[in-house]
Amino acid sequence: MVNATQQQPKHRVVIIGGGFGGLYAAKALGGSSIEVTLIDKRNFHLFQPLLYQVATGTLSPADISSPLRSILSRHKNVRVLMEEVVDVDPQAKTVILRQEELPYDTLIVATGVSHHYFGNEHWKDNAPGLKTVEDAIEMRRRIFMAFEAAEKETDPEKRKAWLTFVIVGGGPTGVELAGAIAELAFKTLKEDFRNIDTTEAQILLLEGLDRVLPPYDPELSAKAEASLTRRGVTVQTKTKVTNIANDVVTIERNDQTEEIPAQTILWAAGVKASAMGKILSDRTGVSLDRVGRVMVEPDLSVSNHPDIFVIGDLAHFAHQGDKPLPGVAPVAMQEGQYLSKLVKARLKGQSVPAFSYAEVGSLAVIGQNAAVVDLGFIQFTGIIAWLIWVVAHIYYLIEFDNKLVVMFQWGWSYFTRKRGARLITGDDAMVEVHMAGSAGSDSLRVTRRDRKTPIEV
Amino acid sequence: MVNATQQQPKHRVVIIGGGFGGLYAAKALGGSSIEVTLIDKRNFHLFQPLLYQVATGTLSPADISSPLRSILSRHKNVRVLMEEVVDVDPQAKTVILRQEELPYDTLIVATGVSHHYFGNEHWKDNAPGLKTVEDAIEMRRRIFMAFEAAEKETDPEKRKAWLTFVIVGGGPTGVELAGAIAELAFKTLKEDFRNIDTTEAQILLLEGLDRVLPPYDPELSAKAEASLTRRGVTVQTKTKVTNIANDVVTIERNDQTEEIPAQTILWAAGVKASAMGKILSDRTGVSLDRVGRVMVEPDLSVSNHPDIFVIGDLAHFAHQGDKPLPGVAPVAMQEGQYLSKLVKARLKGQSVPAFSYAEVGSLAVIGQNAAVVDLGFIQFTGIIAWLIWVVAHIYYLIEFDNKLVVMFQWGWSYFTRKRGARLITGDDAMVEVHMAGSAGSDSLRVTRRDRKTPIEV
Repeated sequence: MVNATQQQPKHRVVIIGGGFGGLYAAKALGGSSIEVTLIDKRNFHLFQPLLYQVATGTLSPADISSPLRSILSRHKNVRVLMEEVVDVDPQAKTVILRQEELPYDTLIVATGVSHHYFGNEHWKDNAPGLKTVEDAIEMRRRIFMAFEAAEKETDPEKRKAWLTFVIVGGGPTGVELAGAIAELAFKTLKEDFRNIDTTEAQILLLEGLDRVLPPYDPELSAKAEASLTRRGVTVQTKTKVTNIANDVVTIERNDQTEEIPAQTILWAAGVKASAMGKILSDRTGVSLDRVGRVMVEPDLSVSNHPDIFVIGDLAHFAHQGDKPLPGVAPVAMQEGQYLSKLVKARLKGQSVPAFSYAEVGSLAVIGQNAAVVDLGFIQFTGIIAWLIWVVAHIYYLIEFDNKLVVMFQWGWSYFTRKRGARLITGDDAMVEVHMAGSAGSDSLRVTRRDRKTPIEV
Repeated sequence: MVNATQQQPKHRVVIIGGGFGGLYAAKALGGSSIEVTLIDKRNFHLFQPLLYQVATGTLSPADISSPLRSILSRHKNVRVLMEEVVDVDPQAKTVILRQEELPYDTLIVATGVSHHYFGNEHWKDNAPGLKTVEDAIEMRRRIFMAFEAAEKETDPEKRKAWLTFVIVGGGPTGVELAGAIAELAFKTLKEDFRNIDTTEAQILLLEGLDRVLPPYDPELSAKAEASLTRRGVTVQTKTKVTNIANDVVTIERNDQTEEIPAQTILWAAGVKASAMGKILSDRTGVSLDRVGRVMVEPDLSVSNHPDIFVIGDLAHFAHQGDKPLPGVAPVAMQEGQYLSKLVKARLKGQSVPAFSYAEVGSLAVIGQNAAVVDLGFIQFTGIIAWLIWVVAHIYYLIEFDNKLVVMFQWGWSYFTRKRGARLITGDDAMVEVHMAGSAGSDSLRVTRRDRKTPIEV
């Protein structure tokens, strides 16, 4: 138990991770007499719920990011450290960085989750996921490059594969990606090509369970599916992906196996805990769940380590309802704020009741004027749900400088149906499409550009 | 000489390069009965005059880019090809791409220029230049990473090197970069760090000639220098960079050699022609100038090849005034529009007078409320020049969807003095600062992150 008297040095809280959980903990502790260090290996906080809009060319990364230093600059008791954590020593009460060890009195771990390919990590190259800004830029590159390659392709079969977009996973991210790609193909890009008709694109959304948005009310799932179908997305539920290779997705459905040639395969299916989960388990003996998340106590602490807490997507909190709390931003934010109260109370020798999540509802957007909102006691679909979604996101972006800019970008692309952020950039930006000339294989493939290109256009 | 009658197939114009020259040629030819193909290896046009604002964290790449297809989509006689040109065959009248050959009746080459290190190409890694979106992201990464590294550094000497920014070249780009970095250090970032005082940063602008902005009126150069100095930039003219190595810039000034330890060195000193210049010279025998630009005829054609034209930065046009036309956007735009008139006239059996550039003035921005504008007959400095600069750039961005968004971003960062696009991203985003521990070298260096990091924060 941590105690503080007037004579003792300042209480030191170290927070690992600047996502919603870590950032909201730091902000809530801001202005106190507690010495707070927020560690992240990136210099910015990412508003992940809008990352799919970067992947599909509506927003720029900076529109949904905010420098951690800038968000926290007015709290002089909070410092930001751009660093990587290598290990934790609960006995010495230190966080081990690459160059130094950082002592803590209270440790908050909020390092989140990454993609999970269910033991098929080699699928990653063919089917990238969406967690970081770099992931989003890579998805954007693949999506827009596919239309470029189709424009150049003369073989109808291969052209079809370039115009086939497979999204694996029917959760909110998969639904949002599928809806946005459908809007691209059927609206935004319609007039831009000369050899292809982008409205011939196939957008396939694959889900293993019997409906999209499985955690939502079944009625909402049905409405979301109907709305996606109207917008040109082919939704296939009860469909298992058994293999991803050579730009072919193999699926199993009704005991039938099918191979779908597709050049663009996007992964929105599963997450696994970040490596901090394993480290905490090794050092403290705490249990992990099936995907490596840390089983936390009712006060979000690690068992037998009342000074170590885990929050956000990395935490498995099973003390409320019959399911663990979902890995969404509102849960992480409330957990971060709860810990600020808990730490402050402890320093006064007081205690706080166990953490309890105040449900704020679930949202997923399907496209312009269409979303689903589940507030628990009431559900919305269609344009009203979409407006709720817009207002909710603008409201939480209030923390960002960028709120008005994003509103403006949205307004602009809403009325013009244009997407300004359709850049194909990065190391692989100047991809070439060439024939693999050798016998037996003349399939079109996208390959890395030779670094020494003969001509700089 | 190209001629067309009603019986002949459509006249084919191939344009290589989607910068200001190529894009304005394509736009001007839009809506005619001419078959136009615009080839670029990128899928977007870049508004290069504002690239330094991406490099310094005010704008996002998409704010100053626009998809070529989207700009040209309403001109059904114009097609865009995302491809690389490998060669040109003036006899067969074809452009050779990687997979195919493209026949032309008229060829317009507008492939621009890239950085020039005056025979010291190995300086490139230590002193990146600013031509592409990727260049700007890399500069942005280095600038913001330098402040992060300084924050962690305990040795005062090394900290000073992290807070030293050297900009080589006092032309418009160098002046704009120096002014923007000074604003970052002395205003934007002032409150964001805990261990360093960002106002201790040194921003050095080095110029070989006797004044900054050498092509401008000397009085303007003097005012620009005074304004930069007031804003905290150290301007050193008549200064020659003799070496860049190990994060040290060696300069020669008044016959004195000096070594400046600096971790961030930015190149704004010279350009050389893109490789198309050499190819055209090999294939047509046309002369190149000292930096590889093509010496063009009064009608922008290549000598003895009346169907091949070179425009924009790649062209050396010496038929007006006593200097070749400068490599700026207005020259390229007017040249592109001129060629549209010329080609249309020729098809009617008519001719047009030689190209003549209508001077629109030179602009360079020094910082908020400060710029220099040289309209030839009149010069401005200070806030009036800055307003002219803002209006001129907004006016030309009219071609972009993004005009209003950029206005909005500018307004926002003008009034808040915040910069939202301060992301450190890319493959090298998670750079670590470590001691090179071996004997004889303990200098701090930024190195590539090991791809297999132990912890995902």
